[in-house]
Amino acid sequence: MKIKDIGGEFGLIVRIKSKIKLYSKDVVAGIGNDAAVLNYDKNNYILFTTDMLVENVHFSLKYYSPQQIGMKAVEQNVSDIAAMGGIPKFAIVSLALPNDIDVEFVDKLYNGINEKSKKYKISIVGGNITHSKEIVVSIAMIGFAEKKNLTLRKGAKINDLIFCSGDVGKSSTGLELLKHNIAGNSIKKHLEPKSRLDLARKIVKVGINSMIDVSDGIASEIKHICSESKVGARIYADKIPLSKNTIIDAKKLHKNPLDFALYGGEDFELVFTAPINKLKQLKKHDIVVIGEIVNKKYGTKLVKNNRKLELKIGFVHFK
Amino acid sequence: MKIKDIGGEFGLIVRIKSKIKLYSKDVVAGIGNDAAVLNYDKNNYILFTTDMLVENVHFSLKYYSPQQIGMKAVEQNVSDIAAMGGIPKFAIVSLALPNDIDVEFVDKLYNGINEKSKKYKISIVGGNITHSKEIVVSIAMIGFAEKKNLTLRKGAKINDLIFCSGDVGKSSTGLELLKHNIAGNSIKKHLEPKSRLDLARKIVKVGINSMIDVSDGIASEIKHICSESKVGARIYADKIPLSKNTIIDAKKLHKNPLDFALYGGEDFELVFTAPINKLKQLKKHDIVVIGEIVNKKYGTKLVKNNRKLELKIGFVHFK
Repeated sequence: MKIKDIGGEFGLIVRIKSKIKLYSKDVVAGIGNDAAVLNYDKNNYILFTTDMLVENVHFSLKYYSPQQIGMKAVEQNVSDIAAMGGIPKFAIVSLALPNDIDVEFVDKLYNGINEKSKKYKISIVGGNITHSKEIVVSIAMIGFAEKKNLTLRKGAKINDLIFCSGDVGKSSTGLELLKHNIAGNSIKKHLEPKSRLDLARKIVKVGINSMIDVSDGIASEIKHICSESKVGARIYADKIPLSKNTIIDAKKLHKNPLDFALYGGEDFELVFTAPINKLKQLKKHDIVVIGEIVNKKYGTKLVKNNRKLELKIGFVHFK
Repeated sequence: MKIKDIGGEFGLIVRIKSKIKLYSKDVVAGIGNDAAVLNYDKNNYILFTTDMLVENVHFSLKYYSPQQIGMKAVEQNVSDIAAMGGIPKFAIVSLALPNDIDVEFVDKLYNGINEKSKKYKISIVGGNITHSKEIVVSIAMIGFAEKKNLTLRKGAKINDLIFCSGDVGKSSTGLELLKHNIAGNSIKKHLEPKSRLDLARKIVKVGINSMIDVSDGIASEIKHICSESKVGARIYADKIPLSKNTIIDAKKLHKNPLDFALYGGEDFELVFTAPINKLKQLKKHDIVVIGEIVNKKYGTKLVKNNRKLELKIGFVHFK
């Protein structure tokens, strides 16, 4: 049986989760969130996450500078910590590198890692280097979240509004441009994605119910929130934030920019839900309401031209 | 310039370390130990480590069962935590897997991970799955060490005795047998190495000055301790513990078993140093004195047949 026969990576995660045992009462949240949540002290949790970039899966040296690879490796982990409402603090870096790689490549990769570590005040405290056929950059990160600010995928409540932190679809539009050798402003959004740590910290202080970062397209992310929270969702196609550049660049590709937003990945924007009484405070930030949480029995729907369509899952490995 | 031109992985680590900045006063020890040490509470530190297994570098599917790969991935991280005097507690698992891999392979890999997690009471709290050409298993682990038990590489003092926790060279002897298609008992030592967590916990309570786990051969490990502690060392060839199986199997390979012990890797035994007044207490455990710490000016020497030889470095990636 192949992984695609059990629903790709998400089916595999469910399967793995069912076989895992926990041996500690200090695990507040394990598999199934952007980061694990562990007891720390009276007021704070430890957040623990990892993300891996694999050559020719997550990046190609045809498009990416080594510095951009390093930057992205840090940003995607920061985005996981941000999505939990926390602050990143420590990281360890595992590199697998081809035997004949230049030292200058590693220098530049670390320039990218160090630039982002400086931005977020993350201390690189260790790592591991080995050789391989293709480049692998795996970062594990520890962060902290105040108990009152911790935000999981599973907290969404019926009648919550669903928010999106900013333009989505930009990264996958950029990737398609690169693949088709077409110029456009979206390319930089793909090569240099930025997590929304600052915004996340502000909105968790307002008080929100659930959150996730957009790594596989907002359709997948909303389905994750609904599945963990045991609710349904309705989102509105005409509310989904698309930048002018995404629209222009999707047109060059003869594609619907909405599809990139729904089913593309790696935007590192945030999708979150909050009760309507928080709307005024949240609206002070540059965020958009894209739908609402409904009873589970209504499923997860996209409202488009007054029709309700089933939300599909976005990017999946092993499909 | 290639990595081999700057001394392989160890030269690269020095280069990376020189460019890293720390942004937290809570980093007690960073790059250059088996695990990073972070402040936790009044009496305890957090330990944070990672290790990666790459197909055809660290294992071949010709020799390894998926279960053995999972077991080894956990053991090598536990060994890092053990070498710091701590206890492992939480792990996250990153997998990169070829697209056409069978679900049964992943099941068996996780059987190995879960078996070892149960043994050591480690909770798997998260992870990441992606695809790749070759299998990569990267585990990051969090553990804890009581402040009084924390043991670094850098604590060795002149006149300390150097101890080894058990038979070394067994894993690399087994690997050579596999490569030459020769049978022998060392093979299982290579495929199923065991960390020495229990022993480590006992000896740190006696009080030792420095410790490291044997992942690249004891020559390398002693050089790491000496470099971090700014001391020299003298070890005695006839004191280095070799099992009967290692001697028998090395003979089949027409190799000197001592070379496997000095320059082979992945035994996951412990090398540690302690003052002579601890000898009586330490001798209650099944460990061996293999040498002594001396002034840095005497270098790191192997005494063999009354001759003093320079200790070379063991296994190095990118050489």
